[in-house]
Amino acid sequence: MRCLGIDPGLGTLGYGIVLQKNDRLIAETYGVVRTPTELSIARRLDFLYEELAAKTRDYPPDVIAVEKLYFGRNVTTAEMVWQARGVVLLFASRLGIEPYEPKPAEMKMAVCGNGAADKVQVQGMIRYLLALDETPRPDDAADALGMAIVGLSLANNDRRLAISR
Amino acid sequence: MRCLGIDPGLGTLGYGIVLQKNDRLIAETYGVVRTPTELSIARRLDFLYEELAAKTRDYPPDVIAVEKLYFGRNVTTAEMVWQARGVVLLFASRLGIEPYEPKPAEMKMAVCGNGAADKVQVQGMIRYLLALDETPRPDDAADALGMAIVGLSLANNDRRLAISR
Repeated sequence: MRCLGIDPGLGTLGYGIVLQKNDRLIAETYGVVRTPTELSIARRLDFLYEELAAKTRDYPPDVIAVEKLYFGRNVTTAEMVWQARGVVLLFASRLGIEPYEPKPAEMKMAVCGNGAADKVQVQGMIRYLLALDETPRPDDAADALGMAIVGLSLANNDRRLAISR
Repeated sequence: MRCLGIDPGLGTLGYGIVLQKNDRLIAETYGVVRTPTELSIARRLDFLYEELAAKTRDYPPDVIAVEKLYFGRNVTTAEMVWQARGVVLLFASRLGIEPYEPKPAEMKMAVCGNGAADKVQVQGMIRYLLALDETPRPDDAADALGMAIVGLSLANNDRRLAISR
């Protein structure tokens, strides 16, 4: 089972693709997509969609997890992130996948067993779980890998429930 | 020249297609797309995209205007509208069209000559400019027609500027 995790954003979008093979988790690819700032918002959204298609071509996901963000009152940043997030959700739907939308605390819980874990703890656990030689950089890529891990965990739970019915 | 105007939303999206033929404005089609509430957000965004493609099949636009919204602190509503708006902007980009993003006040100015005009005035002017037998309903469809009108006005200005260069 393979999960694409996404930390959505218009300027920088983090992605991480994790394969679960028996009890092992393998980070097949991860990184960030940066959209050219000289392009319009509409063109940047299009750029994001095409990059998602390109990144997943060799690693077609079975599961997708897109971080659910909370902005409080910072509405200006929220606008761009949510527009990008809409495009990511559309991308998932077009692959026929119903995306999970975990909150950051749910990801921390799945990765660290603690929904309030700090960034260093979370990144350390992601590195450990994926047996990486170094901490994934930048933060958006690490967050996306965390999303992929929680996505696999949620999908495993859903499958167990489906089987036990 | 034909403009697709959009009042974005996830549950209800207003659309209006206006053809400018010499000095006449003709409302070729307008209405709202309502997405089934039993679908997930991702599937509803996909539904919106497909409906936009279907509505424009017989009326391919040269210009697209997508309302630019301001939410203040109402972040919960904003999230869904912006996710839908991201999909609309992507749709425009995929048609090779750079969308205009007029604010409501700009639409009111273009339609009524008054950026603070009230809804009744705006809808009355839209009806008059498009020579409609009745006021377009619901409000989202009327707003979308207003967006189409301001989109044509902005495109005409841009073309004049391009010619005079």
